[in-house]
Amino acid sequence: MQRKYTLAILGGTGQQGSALALRWAKAGHRIIIGSRDPARATAAAEQLKAKLPAADASGTSYREAAAAAEVVVLTVPYAAQRTTVEEVRAALTGKILIDATVPLVAPKVARVQLPPEGSAVAAVQKLLGKAVRVVSAFQNVSAHHLRDLAHDVDCDVLVCGDDVAARDLAAQLAADMGLRAVHAGSIVNSAATEALTSLLISINLRYKIAGAGIRITGLP
Amino acid sequence: MQRKYTLAILGGTGQQGSALALRWAKAGHRIIIGSRDPARATAAAEQLKAKLPAADASGTSYREAAAAAEVVVLTVPYAAQRTTVEEVRAALTGKILIDATVPLVAPKVARVQLPPEGSAVAAVQKLLGKAVRVVSAFQNVSAHHLRDLAHDVDCDVLVCGDDVAARDLAAQLAADMGLRAVHAGSIVNSAATEALTSLLISINLRYKIAGAGIRITGLP
Repeated sequence: MQRKYTLAILGGTGQQGSALALRWAKAGHRIIIGSRDPARATAAAEQLKAKLPAADASGTSYREAAAAAEVVVLTVPYAAQRTTVEEVRAALTGKILIDATVPLVAPKVARVQLPPEGSAVAAVQKLLGKAVRVVSAFQNVSAHHLRDLAHDVDCDVLVCGDDVAARDLAAQLAADMGLRAVHAGSIVNSAATEALTSLLISINLRYKIAGAGIRITGLP
Repeated sequence: MQRKYTLAILGGTGQQGSALALRWAKAGHRIIIGSRDPARATAAAEQLKAKLPAADASGTSYREAAAAAEVVVLTVPYAAQRTTVEEVRAALTGKILIDATVPLVAPKVARVQLPPEGSAVAAVQKLLGKAVRVVSAFQNVSAHHLRDLAHDVDCDVLVCGDDVAARDLAAQLAADMGLRAVHAGSIVNSAATEALTSLLISINLRYKIAGAGIRITGLP
Protein backbone atom coordinates (compact mmCIF):
# COMPACT_ATOMS: atom_id res chain seq x y z
CA MET A 1 0.00 0.00 0.00
CA GLN A 2 1.32 3.44 -0.95
CA ARG A 3 -0.16 5.55 1.83
CA LYS A 4 -3.11 5.82 4.17
CA TYR A 5 -5.99 8.13 3.37
CA THR A 6 -8.83 9.58 5.36
CA LEU A 7 -11.88 8.42 3.44
CA ALA A 8 -15.42 9.69 3.92
CA ILE A 9 -17.97 7.05 2.97
CA LEU A 10 -21.21 8.96 2.42
CA GLY A 11 -23.93 6.34 2.71
CA GLY A 12 -21.59 4.08 4.62
CA THR A 13 -24.52 2.77 6.65
CA GLY A 14 -25.84 0.96 3.54
CA GLN A 15 -24.89 -2.39 2.04
CA GLN A 16 -22.35 -1.21 -0.52
CA GLY A 17 -20.91 1.60 1.57
CA SER A 18 -20.39 -0.46 4.71
CA ALA A 19 -18.80 -3.27 2.71
CA LEU A 20 -16.35 -0.87 1.01
CA ALA A 21 -15.61 0.76 4.38
CA LEU A 22 -14.82 -2.64 5.89
CA ARG A 23 -12.30 -3.51 3.15
CA TRP A 24 -10.63 -0.10 3.28
CA ALA A 25 -10.44 -0.18 7.06
CA LYS A 26 -8.76 -3.58 6.79
CA ALA A 27 -6.24 -2.02 4.38
CA GLY A 28 -5.39 0.55 7.04
CA HIS A 29 -7.24 3.61 5.77
CA ARG A 30 -9.01 5.92 8.21
CA ILE A 31 -12.77 5.68 7.72
CA ILE A 32 -15.36 8.36 8.43
CA ILE A 33 -18.85 7.14 7.75
CA GLY A 34 -21.25 9.89 6.78
CA SER A 35 -25.01 9.61 7.13
CA ARG A 36 -28.07 11.81 7.15
CA ASP A 37 -28.43 10.57 10.72
CA PRO A 38 -25.08 10.94 12.57
CA ALA A 39 -26.20 8.44 15.24
CA ARG A 40 -26.66 5.77 12.56
CA ALA A 41 -23.24 6.64 11.14
CA THR A 42 -21.67 6.18 14.57
CA ALA A 43 -23.48 2.87 15.00
CA ALA A 44 -22.18 1.68 11.60
CA ALA A 45 -18.63 2.65 12.63
CA GLU A 46 -19.04 0.68 15.85
CA GLN A 47 -20.25 -2.35 13.89
CA LEU A 48 -17.19 -2.07 11.67
CA LYS A 49 -14.88 -1.96 14.69
CA ALA A 50 -16.67 -4.97 16.18
CA LYS A 51 -15.58 -6.90 13.06
CA LEU A 52 -12.15 -5.29 12.82
CA PRO A 53 -10.98 -4.10 16.27
CA ALA A 54 -7.88 -2.44 14.78
CA ALA A 55 -9.96 -0.28 12.44
CA ASP A 56 -9.82 3.50 12.63
CA ALA A 57 -13.50 4.30 12.04
CA SER A 58 -15.96 6.93 13.19
CA GLY A 59 -19.34 8.27 12.13
CA THR A 60 -20.83 11.71 11.66
CA SER A 61 -23.00 13.83 9.34
CA TYR A 62 -22.53 13.97 5.57
CA ARG A 63 -21.06 17.46 5.79
CA GLU A 64 -18.62 16.79 8.58
CA ALA A 65 -17.48 13.54 7.01
CA ALA A 66 -16.85 15.22 3.65
CA ALA A 67 -15.06 18.17 5.30
CA ALA A 68 -12.71 15.95 7.30
CA ALA A 69 -11.81 13.57 4.46
CA GLU A 70 -9.09 13.65 1.81
CA VAL A 71 -11.17 11.54 -0.55
CA VAL A 72 -14.96 11.36 -0.53
CA VAL A 73 -16.78 8.20 -1.62
CA LEU A 74 -20.47 8.38 -2.50
CA THR A 75 -22.53 5.23 -1.92
CA VAL A 76 -26.04 6.56 -1.31
CA PRO A 77 -29.11 5.30 -3.19
CA TYR A 78 -29.63 6.90 -6.59
CA ALA A 79 -32.66 8.86 -5.37
CA ALA A 80 -30.46 10.60 -2.78
CA GLN A 81 -27.40 11.14 -4.99
CA ARG A 82 -28.00 14.70 -6.09
CA THR A 83 -29.25 16.09 -2.79
CA THR A 84 -26.33 14.51 -0.94
CA VAL A 85 -23.82 15.99 -3.37
CA GLU A 86 -25.44 19.42 -3.05
CA GLU A 87 -25.35 19.16 0.73
CA VAL A 88 -21.60 18.50 0.83
CA ARG A 89 -20.64 20.54 -2.21
CA ALA A 90 -18.66 23.20 -0.36
CA ALA A 91 -16.49 20.52 1.27
CA LEU A 92 -15.69 18.82 -2.05
CA THR A 93 -13.79 21.67 -3.70
CA GLY A 94 -10.32 20.53 -4.76
CA LYS A 95 -11.00 16.95 -3.69
CA ILE A 96 -11.60 13.71 -5.50
CA LEU A 97 -15.12 12.31 -5.34
CA ILE A 98 -15.42 8.60 -6.04
CA ASP A 99 -19.03 8.02 -6.99
CA ALA A 100 -20.35 4.44 -6.88
CA THR A 101 -23.94 5.43 -7.61
CA VAL A 102 -26.04 3.08 -9.72
CA PRO A 103 -29.30 4.46 -11.14
CA LEU A 104 -31.45 1.54 -10.04
CA VAL A 105 -35.17 2.24 -10.23
CA ALA A 106 -37.18 0.01 -7.89
CA PRO A 107 -38.92 -2.36 -8.23
CA LYS A 108 -37.32 -3.32 -11.56
CA VAL A 109 -33.70 -3.18 -10.43
CA ALA A 110 -32.71 -5.94 -12.88
CA ARG A 111 -33.75 -3.70 -15.76
CA VAL A 112 -31.31 -1.11 -17.12
CA GLN A 113 -32.89 2.31 -16.58
CA LEU A 114 -30.23 4.92 -17.19
CA PRO A 115 -31.20 8.53 -16.49
CA PRO A 116 -31.90 10.98 -19.34
CA GLU A 117 -28.39 12.42 -18.91
CA GLY A 118 -26.99 8.97 -19.82
CA SER A 119 -24.96 8.37 -16.67
CA ALA A 120 -25.77 9.24 -13.06
CA VAL A 121 -22.12 9.82 -12.24
CA ALA A 122 -21.41 11.93 -15.33
CA ALA A 123 -24.36 14.10 -14.28
CA VAL A 124 -22.65 14.75 -10.94
CA GLN A 125 -19.37 15.68 -12.65
CA LYS A 126 -21.35 18.13 -14.78
CA LEU A 127 -23.07 19.56 -11.70
CA LEU A 128 -19.83 20.03 -9.78
CA GLY A 129 -17.69 21.35 -12.63
CA LYS A 130 -13.92 21.33 -12.71
CA ALA A 131 -13.55 22.18 -9.01
CA VAL A 132 -14.13 18.53 -8.14
CA ARG A 133 -12.58 15.56 -9.92
CA VAL A 134 -15.23 12.86 -10.07
CA VAL A 135 -14.34 9.22 -10.63
CA SER A 136 -16.85 6.45 -11.27
CA ALA A 137 -15.95 3.12 -9.66
CA PHE A 138 -17.09 0.17 -7.53
CA GLN A 139 -20.60 -0.17 -9.06
CA ASN A 140 -20.07 -3.80 -10.07
CA VAL A 141 -18.42 -5.21 -6.97
CA SER A 142 -20.82 -7.27 -4.90
CA ALA A 143 -21.30 -6.17 -1.29
CA HIS A 144 -21.95 -9.82 -0.48
CA HIS A 145 -18.41 -10.73 -1.54
CA LEU A 146 -16.79 -7.57 -0.14
CA ARG A 147 -18.15 -8.39 3.33
CA ASP A 148 -16.52 -11.80 3.28
CA LEU A 149 -13.01 -10.84 4.32
CA ALA A 150 -11.83 -14.45 4.19
CA HIS A 151 -11.99 -14.48 0.38
CA ASP A 152 -10.65 -12.35 -2.44
CA VAL A 153 -13.34 -10.83 -4.64
CA ASP A 154 -13.41 -12.21 -8.20
CA CYS A 155 -14.32 -8.95 -9.94
CA ASP A 156 -12.55 -6.10 -11.71
CA VAL A 157 -13.22 -2.45 -10.86
CA LEU A 158 -13.95 -0.36 -13.96
CA VAL A 159 -12.68 3.16 -13.31
CA CYS A 160 -14.02 6.03 -15.46
CA GLY A 161 -13.16 9.68 -15.10
CA ASP A 162 -11.87 12.69 -16.98
CA ASP A 163 -8.80 13.14 -14.76
CA VAL A 164 -6.11 10.46 -15.02
CA ALA A 165 -4.50 11.18 -11.63
CA ALA A 166 -7.91 10.88 -9.96
CA ARG A 167 -8.52 7.58 -11.75
CA ASP A 168 -5.11 6.39 -10.60
CA LEU A 169 -6.03 7.12 -6.99
CA ALA A 170 -9.30 5.20 -7.29
CA ALA A 171 -7.35 2.35 -8.90
CA GLN A 172 -4.91 2.37 -5.98
CA LEU A 173 -7.81 2.25 -3.50
CA ALA A 174 -9.19 -0.75 -5.39
CA ALA A 175 -5.78 -2.44 -5.30
CA ASP A 176 -5.60 -1.80 -1.54
CA MET A 177 -8.58 -4.12 -1.11
CA GLY A 178 -7.11 -6.72 -3.45
CA LEU A 179 -9.15 -5.76 -6.51
CA ARG A 180 -7.80 -5.18 -9.99
CA ALA A 181 -8.80 -1.80 -11.41
CA VAL A 182 -9.11 -1.20 -15.13
CA HIS A 183 -9.00 2.30 -16.64
CA ALA A 184 -12.14 2.49 -18.75
CA GLY A 185 -12.20 5.96 -20.23
CA SER A 186 -13.90 9.25 -19.56
CA ILE A 187 -16.66 9.91 -17.06
CA VAL A 188 -19.41 9.42 -19.66
CA ASN A 189 -18.35 5.77 -19.92
CA SER A 190 -19.76 5.31 -16.46
CA ALA A 191 -23.03 4.65 -18.33
CA ALA A 192 -21.62 1.22 -19.13
CA THR A 193 -20.66 0.34 -15.56
CA GLU A 194 -23.93 1.70 -14.16
CA ALA A 195 -25.96 -0.29 -16.71
CA LEU A 196 -23.87 -3.35 -16.03
CA THR A 197 -25.04 -3.45 -12.42
CA SER A 198 -28.66 -4.06 -13.47
CA LEU A 199 -27.41 -6.70 -15.86
CA LEU A 200 -25.49 -8.41 -13.03
CA ILE A 201 -28.59 -8.31 -10.83
CA SER A 202 -30.50 -9.92 -13.68
CA ILE A 203 -27.83 -12.64 -13.88
CA ASN A 204 -28.02 -13.16 -10.09
CA LEU A 205 -31.76 -13.75 -10.36
CA ARG A 206 -31.58 -16.00 -13.41
CA TYR A 207 -28.74 -18.20 -12.15
CA LYS A 208 -29.70 -18.03 -8.44
CA ILE A 209 -26.31 -16.73 -7.34
CA ALA A 210 -25.40 -14.08 -4.79
CA GLY A 211 -22.92 -11.82 -6.50
CA ALA A 212 -22.08 -12.05 -10.19
CA GLY A 213 -19.12 -9.91 -11.18
CA ILE A 214 -17.09 -9.09 -14.25
CA ARG A 215 -13.56 -9.56 -15.48
CA ILE A 216 -11.91 -7.83 -18.41
CA THR A 217 -10.02 -10.31 -20.58
CA GLY A 218 -7.10 -9.73 -22.91
CA LEU A 219 -5.14 -7.40 -20.61
CA PRO A 220 -1.36 -7.79 -20.43
CA MET B 1 -24.08 -29.12 -31.82
CA GLN B 2 -27.84 -29.54 -31.77
CA ARG B 3 -28.71 -28.81 -35.39
CA LYS B 4 -27.59 -26.81 -38.39
CA TYR B 5 -29.25 -23.54 -39.27
CA THR B 6 -29.37 -21.39 -42.34
CA LEU B 7 -28.07 -18.06 -41.05
CA ALA B 8 -28.28 -14.75 -42.89
CA ILE B 9 -25.47 -12.42 -41.84
CA LEU B 10 -26.62 -8.96 -42.88
CA GLY B 11 -23.47 -6.88 -43.01
CA GLY B 12 -21.38 -10.04 -43.32
CA THR B 13 -18.90 -8.16 -45.50
CA GLY B 14 -17.78 -6.13 -42.46
CA GLN B 15 -15.30 -6.97 -39.73
CA GLN B 16 -17.70 -8.31 -37.10
CA GLY B 17 -20.10 -9.97 -39.54
CA SER B 18 -17.42 -11.79 -41.52
CA ALA B 19 -15.75 -13.00 -38.34
CA LEU B 20 -19.03 -14.38 -36.95
CA ALA B 21 -19.80 -15.97 -40.33
CA LEU B 22 -16.41 -17.69 -40.31
CA ARG B 23 -16.95 -19.21 -36.87
CA TRP B 24 -20.50 -20.35 -37.68
CA ALA B 25 -19.42 -21.83 -40.99
CA LYS B 26 -16.74 -23.74 -39.13
CA ALA B 27 -19.45 -25.07 -36.80
CA GLY B 28 -21.33 -26.40 -39.84
CA HIS B 29 -24.07 -23.82 -40.24
CA ARG B 30 -25.13 -22.70 -43.70
CA ILE B 31 -24.14 -19.06 -44.21
CA ILE B 32 -25.81 -16.51 -46.47
CA ILE B 33 -24.02 -13.20 -46.42
CA GLY B 34 -26.28 -10.26 -47.12
CA SER B 35 -25.02 -6.92 -48.38
CA ARG B 36 -26.34 -3.77 -49.98
CA ASP B 37 -24.11 -4.81 -52.88
CA PRO B 38 -24.72 -8.50 -53.75
CA ALA B 39 -21.39 -8.71 -55.59
CA ARG B 40 -19.55 -7.76 -52.42
CA ALA B 41 -21.57 -10.34 -50.51
CA THR B 42 -20.57 -13.03 -53.00
CA ALA B 43 -16.93 -11.96 -52.74
CA ALA B 44 -17.08 -12.18 -48.94
CA ALA B 45 -18.55 -15.68 -49.20
CA GLU B 46 -15.72 -16.69 -51.55
CA GLN B 47 -13.16 -15.32 -49.09
CA LEU B 48 -14.77 -17.36 -46.34
CA LYS B 49 -14.60 -20.52 -48.46
CA ALA B 50 -10.96 -19.79 -49.25
CA LYS B 51 -10.28 -19.99 -45.51
CA LEU B 52 -12.67 -22.90 -44.89
CA PRO B 53 -13.11 -24.97 -48.06
CA ALA B 54 -15.81 -27.13 -46.44
CA ALA B 55 -17.96 -24.10 -45.65
CA ASP B 56 -21.46 -23.77 -47.06
CA ALA B 57 -21.49 -20.05 -47.82
CA SER B 58 -23.02 -17.77 -50.41
CA GLY B 59 -23.75 -14.07 -50.85
CA THR B 60 -26.73 -12.04 -52.00
CA SER B 61 -28.80 -8.95 -51.24
CA TYR B 62 -30.10 -8.09 -47.77
CA ARG B 63 -33.63 -9.05 -48.76
CA GLU B 64 -32.82 -12.37 -50.38
CA ALA B 65 -30.51 -13.34 -47.54
CA ALA B 66 -33.15 -12.55 -44.92
CA ALA B 67 -35.86 -14.36 -46.90
CA ALA B 68 -33.81 -17.54 -47.30
CA ALA B 69 -32.60 -17.74 -43.69
CA GLU B 70 -34.08 -19.37 -40.60
CA VAL B 71 -32.26 -16.93 -38.32
CA VAL B 72 -31.17 -13.44 -39.32
CA VAL B 73 -28.10 -11.81 -37.78
CA LEU B 74 -27.62 -8.06 -38.05
CA THR B 75 -24.03 -6.77 -38.08
CA VAL B 76 -24.27 -3.52 -40.05
CA PRO B 77 -22.88 -0.20 -38.78
CA TYR B 78 -25.19 1.66 -36.41
CA ALA B 79 -25.95 4.35 -39.00
CA ALA B 80 -27.38 1.65 -41.32
CA GLN B 81 -29.23 -0.37 -38.67
CA ARG B 82 -32.73 1.04 -39.05
CA THR B 83 -32.79 1.29 -42.84
CA THR B 84 -31.50 -2.27 -43.17
CA VAL B 85 -34.15 -3.58 -40.78
CA GLU B 86 -36.85 -1.70 -42.66
CA GLU B 87 -35.60 -3.10 -45.97
CA VAL B 88 -35.85 -6.73 -44.80
CA ARG B 89 -38.81 -6.31 -42.49
CA ALA B 90 -41.25 -8.42 -44.51
CA ALA B 91 -38.82 -11.35 -44.48
CA LEU B 92 -38.36 -11.22 -40.69
CA THR B 93 -41.92 -12.03 -39.64
CA GLY B 94 -42.00 -15.06 -37.37
CA LYS B 95 -38.20 -15.28 -37.29
CA ILE B 96 -35.55 -14.56 -34.73
CA LEU B 97 -33.35 -11.52 -35.37
CA ILE B 98 -30.03 -11.53 -33.56
CA ASP B 99 -28.88 -7.92 -33.49
CA ALA B 100 -25.21 -7.23 -32.75
CA THR B 101 -25.47 -3.50 -33.42
CA VAL B 102 -23.36 -1.16 -31.32
CA PRO B 103 -24.26 2.54 -31.38
CA LEU B 104 -20.73 3.77 -32.00
CA VAL B 105 -20.54 7.39 -33.09
CA ALA B 106 -17.34 8.17 -34.98
CA PRO B 107 -14.82 9.55 -34.39
CA LYS B 108 -15.22 9.07 -30.62
CA VAL B 109 -15.92 5.34 -30.67
CA ALA B 110 -14.26 4.85 -27.27
CA ARG B 111 -16.89 7.12 -25.73
CA VAL B 112 -20.26 5.66 -24.69
CA GLN B 113 -22.90 7.43 -26.78
CA LEU B 114 -26.15 5.52 -26.37
CA PRO B 115 -29.08 6.69 -28.50
CA PRO B 116 -31.98 8.65 -26.95
CA GLU B 117 -34.05 5.44 -26.85
CA GLY B 118 -31.42 3.98 -24.49
CA SER B 119 -30.48 0.93 -26.55
CA ALA B 120 -30.09 0.58 -30.32
CA VAL B 121 -31.28 -3.03 -30.25
CA ALA B 122 -34.27 -2.35 -28.00
CA ALA B 123 -35.29 0.35 -30.48
CA VAL B 124 -35.37 -2.29 -33.23
CA GLN B 125 -37.50 -4.63 -31.11
CA LYS B 126 -39.89 -1.73 -30.57
CA LEU B 127 -39.96 -0.96 -34.29
CA LEU B 128 -40.65 -4.57 -35.29
CA GLY B 129 -43.17 -5.40 -32.58
CA LYS B 130 -44.10 -8.91 -31.47
CA ALA B 131 -43.93 -10.39 -34.99
CA VAL B 132 -40.15 -10.64 -34.69
CA ARG B 133 -38.26 -11.89 -31.66
CA VAL B 134 -35.15 -9.74 -31.33
CA VAL B 135 -32.13 -10.89 -29.35
CA SER B 136 -29.13 -8.72 -28.53
CA ALA B 137 -25.80 -10.57 -28.60
CA PHE B 138 -22.19 -10.65 -29.82
CA GLN B 139 -21.46 -6.91 -29.31
CA ASN B 140 -18.50 -7.56 -27.02
CA VAL B 141 -16.72 -10.35 -28.87
CA SER B 142 -13.64 -9.10 -30.69
CA ALA B 143 -13.56 -9.73 -34.46
CA HIS B 144 -9.78 -9.91 -34.13
CA HIS B 145 -10.08 -12.97 -31.89
CA LEU B 146 -13.02 -14.51 -33.77
CA ARG B 147 -10.98 -14.54 -36.98
CA ASP B 148 -8.20 -16.51 -35.31
CA LEU B 149 -9.66 -20.01 -35.60
CA ALA B 150 -6.62 -21.56 -33.94
CA HIS B 151 -7.61 -20.12 -30.55
CA ASP B 152 -10.69 -20.10 -28.37
CA VAL B 153 -12.07 -16.64 -27.66
CA ASP B 154 -11.76 -15.57 -24.01
CA CYS B 155 -15.05 -13.66 -23.81
CA ASP B 156 -18.62 -14.32 -22.70
CA VAL B 157 -21.61 -13.48 -24.87
CA LEU B 158 -24.24 -11.47 -23.00
CA VAL B 159 -27.64 -12.36 -24.42
CA CYS B 160 -30.57 -10.00 -23.84
CA GLY B 161 -34.09 -10.43 -25.15
CA ASP B 162 -37.72 -10.57 -24.13
CA ASP B 163 -38.26 -14.12 -25.43
CA VAL B 164 -36.49 -16.89 -23.55
CA ALA B 165 -36.59 -19.43 -26.40
CA ALA B 166 -35.04 -16.88 -28.76
CA ARG B 167 -32.33 -16.15 -26.18
CA ASP B 168 -31.72 -19.90 -25.88
CA LEU B 169 -31.18 -20.15 -29.63
CA ALA B 170 -28.69 -17.27 -29.61
CA ALA B 171 -26.95 -18.94 -26.66
CA GLN B 172 -26.72 -22.19 -28.62
CA LEU B 173 -25.25 -20.36 -31.60
CA ALA B 174 -22.65 -18.85 -29.25
CA ALA B 175 -21.87 -22.29 -27.84
CA ASP B 176 -21.46 -23.63 -31.38
CA MET B 177 -18.47 -21.34 -31.78
CA GLY B 178 -17.06 -22.26 -28.38
CA LEU B 179 -18.31 -19.20 -26.54
CA ARG B 180 -20.14 -19.19 -23.23
CA ALA B 181 -23.44 -17.33 -23.39
CA VAL B 182 -24.95 -15.67 -20.31
CA HIS B 183 -28.64 -14.79 -20.12
CA ALA B 184 -28.65 -11.12 -19.16
CA GLY B 185 -32.29 -10.10 -19.02
CA SER B 186 -34.77 -8.29 -21.21
CA ILE B 187 -34.00 -6.47 -24.44
CA VAL B 188 -33.61 -3.10 -22.70
CA ASN B 189 -30.55 -4.51 -20.93
CA SER B 190 -28.82 -4.41 -24.29
CA ALA B 191 -27.94 -0.82 -23.29
CA ALA B 192 -25.30 -2.36 -21.01
CA THR B 193 -23.71 -4.58 -23.66
CA GLU B 194 -23.80 -1.82 -26.27
CA ALA B 195 -22.18 0.66 -23.88
CA LEU B 196 -19.64 -1.95 -22.86
CA THR B 197 -18.26 -2.09 -26.41
CA SER B 198 -17.11 1.55 -26.27
CA LEU B 199 -15.64 0.84 -22.88
CA LEU B 200 -13.72 -2.15 -24.30
CA ILE B 201 -12.45 0.00 -27.20
CA SER B 202 -11.29 2.53 -24.60
CA ILE B 203 -9.46 -0.27 -22.76
CA ASN B 204 -7.86 -1.46 -26.04
CA LEU B 205 -6.50 2.04 -26.64
CA ARG B 206 -5.30 2.58 -23.09
CA TYR B 207 -3.58 -0.79 -22.68
CA LYS B 208 -2.49 -1.13 -26.34
CA ILE B 209 -4.21 -4.48 -26.84
CA ALA B 210 -6.20 -5.79 -29.77
CA GLY B 211 -9.36 -7.22 -28.30
CA ALA B 212 -10.38 -6.78 -24.69
CA GLY B 213 -13.34 -8.92 -23.69
CA ILE B 214 -15.46 -9.65 -20.66
CA ARG B 215 -16.18 -12.60 -18.43
CA ILE B 216 -19.01 -12.88 -15.91
CA THR B 217 -17.76 -14.24 -12.59
CA GLY B 218 -19.66 -16.12 -9.90
CA LEU B 219 -21.65 -18.38 -12.22
CA PRO B 220 -22.14 -22.02 -11.21
